[in-house]
Amino acid sequence: MTRFEPSGVVTLTTDFGLRDPFVGVMKGQILLRFPRATLVDLTHEIPAHWPAEAGFWLARAFRYFPRGTVHVAVVDPGVGGTRAIAAVETEGHVFLAPDNGLLAPVMDGAAAPVARRVAESVLERIGVRAVSATFHGRDIFAPVAAELASGRLEPGQLGEACTDLVPGWLEDPVVAESHVTGAVVTIDHFGNLITNIEAQHLRHLSEAAVRVAGRDVPMRRIYADARPGEYLALMNSFGVLEIARAERSAAEGLGLARGAPVVVFSKRS
Amino acid sequence: MTRFEPSGVVTLTTDFGLRDPFVGVMKGQILLRFPRATLVDLTHEIPAHWPAEAGFWLARAFRYFPRGTVHVAVVDPGVGGTRAIAAVETEGHVFLAPDNGLLAPVMDGAAAPVARRVAESVLERIGVRAVSATFHGRDIFAPVAAELASGRLEPGQLGEACTDLVPGWLEDPVVAESHVTGAVVTIDHFGNLITNIEAQHLRHLSEAAVRVAGRDVPMRRIYADARPGEYLALMNSFGVLEIARAERSAAEGLGLARGAPVVVFSKRS
Amino acid sequence: MTRFEPSGVVTLTTDFGLRDPFVGVMKGQILLRFPRATLVDLTHEIPAHWPAEAGFWLARAFRYFPRGTVHVAVVDPGVGGTRAIAAVETEGHVFLAPDNGLLAPVMDGAAAPVARRVAESVLERIGVRAVSATFHGRDIFAPVAAELASGRLEPGQLGEACTDLVPGWLEDPVVAESHVTGAVVTIDHFGNLITNIEAQHLRHLSEAAVRVAGRDVPMRRIYADARPGEYLALMNSFGVLEIARAERSAAEGLGLARGAPVVVFSKRS
Repeated sequence: MTRFEPSGVVTLTTDFGLRDPFVGVMKGQILLRFPRATLVDLTHEIPAHWPAEAGFWLARAFRYFPRGTVHVAVVDPGVGGTRAIAAVETEGHVFLAPDNGLLAPVMDGAAAPVARRVAESVLERIGVRAVSATFHGRDIFAPVAAELASGRLEPGQLGEACTDLVPGWLEDPVVAESHVTGAVVTIDHFGNLITNIEAQHLRHLSEAAVRVAGRDVPMRRIYADARPGEYLALMNSFGVLEIARAERSAAEGLGLARGAPVVVFSKRS
Repeated sequence: MTRFEPSGVVTLTTDFGLRDPFVGVMKGQILLRFPRATLVDLTHEIPAHWPAEAGFWLARAFRYFPRGTVHVAVVDPGVGGTRAIAAVETEGHVFLAPDNGLLAPVMDGAAAPVARRVAESVLERIGVRAVSATFHGRDIFAPVAAELASGRLEPGQLGEACTDLVPGWLEDPVVAESHVTGAVVTIDHFGNLITNIEAQHLRHLSEAAVRVAGRDVPMRRIYADARPGEYLALMNSFGVLEIARAERSAAEGLGLARGAPVVVFSKRS
Repeated sequence: MTRFEPSGVVTLTTDFGLRDPFVGVMKGQILLRFPRATLVDLTHEIPAHWPAEAGFWLARAFRYFPRGTVHVAVVDPGVGGTRAIAAVETEGHVFLAPDNGLLAPVMDGAAAPVARRVAESVLERIGVRAVSATFHGRDIFAPVAAELASGRLEPGQLGEACTDLVPGWLEDPVVAESHVTGAVVTIDHFGNLITNIEAQHLRHLSEAAVRVAGRDVPMRRIYADARPGEYLALMNSFGVLEIARAERSAAEGLGLARGAPVVVFSKRS
């Protein structure tokens, strides 16, 4: 396994939005303990209480950051209850999140991941006290991330390795001989429909096309291969199937939302 | 008083939004004078021209940042007119804002605050020239913040201490024997209603419950203590009363906006 | 020409929004190559596929950043096709953008700009490989920006100087003896209408007033010179004519959008 050697970079992924000072205050708490941290927002617009999307993006985004990055994700409907805090170490990166399935996509897609639950004794040891009931991002995640990013705490010290983190919320695509059925996981800023279907799921299909919202959509390489207003599907830059509409919003045009089914079929069959 | 020793951190709070380059340009002007500044956005989504909310959040957020932080807040309907620039030093932090009541909540809640108005001679001394009529965030606040954060300018050099900053816009809750009446100050990203009622206002009430929009709402410790869709009230992580709806938006459900009255009463009386 | 000496600052301007991890991932790729980069968001809310607005703001914002700043702008409807990557060096700053007209306002407004197209051999030399078809911001712009900001690559090494970058999308105002006709280029967060009319276009008009949406609007110095609800026009802090409504949204009040015509006339004539 690639050992975690801190780069000083900490990424933040939440459903807090940017309207309130919540994200800023988390950064304050990280800087208090580790003034030289380099803080990068991944996104704070995860749909409220929907950890699945945070994990989906993290699993596809983390390798674009330097090894030694600490990735903190807080989408936490169970805050203040009994859920644990999960940590995953893989490929020289460390992830912290509520143990609610958020990190399942990282566990599934990364090399030799090691999962742990953060022990209570660790919080005591690093001086985490007076924890609020409703804002663990500030009171627990930020301090632990700072200690990891500064190198004062090693991932191996967080707790015993375990194999029973809470499982993920998203189903894998169903792969049949003549077609593959997946779903829209999220809709991006441009209205492109991002699915959970990866290139590896489609290898056995020749001349694939996509059926979505009752419409057949051709596979293209780039957006500019379609005329403005035309629908297209492509394997996007994060390695998943995306349905787009050239220079428009596919989501609006098709009237689709998260969860909508997407079928890829072989035009030969 | 805790002396201000600059940490290099500068927080920014404005009503500029993130759609235009205004915030970025303020950061450019800070980095021009102090390249090693650590810049943290608190929020840029303060309602336009509503300084009260900026002060409300700053007063509750600043202690989560390292001592030595400079907090710049620009919500400034009177820009270019005769309003002065206020500076407050307290607990090892410094605040800069238009003298329009924005910093009143900081003055009210902090230990031994010292208020000043920034003297014209200071601007001359640090080379602030060619000030625009409409963007003092860039032309005045950013340079002064950079000089303070770099340590080249001390808070005591900004001007004479004074006791007559413009007062705040928010009224305090009314505390009666059997109940306390406050108001919704802001609505957060999750649709939670944030009020101006603090724990200290409620100490004399036994078995408190909350009446809001004609509805009685029970006090809980955490969101997960209510079933999805149920309303609850809790003392939130910033120490003020909040009305929430588990996994939903209380603001939408109750049809309430900023300013709505909130009453806490004793179920015993 | 002022030589480019890297300050370590990189600004980012895109139409990616902040809902997805696209901007964060670009930052990850910059930090991977240049860990000490200082990253500043100019804006990520450029209207989708509308490079003209990115160039408009960059041309007016860049001088507020330290000399030696690298400005990366990615508004790129033709990504993955045959469009080149443009680089402009001027006044000690460097700009990178798709060659689609985005940088035309910078070329027009800056001193002795030198334009280049980034040569394929440069990408090979700095180890850019496995470029996706749809996300050049991450796969090309971020690495090139990092190499420039770190000083490992000089602007002069990007390619041959050229004079035929793709021209801009915005027309200049039409200046007549008795009036000047321009257009709304963008609408800011406050609902102010930002036009392409600069002070230099108006020098020959005495006692100027503005006609917009069939209404005559007086010129003022600052917002506070009008009563709440009144319309006014002013030369804003970026040197262009702006139509505002005191403490309200002029865009909503007038029902206007980007592209709307604005006429400045002389009240004397």
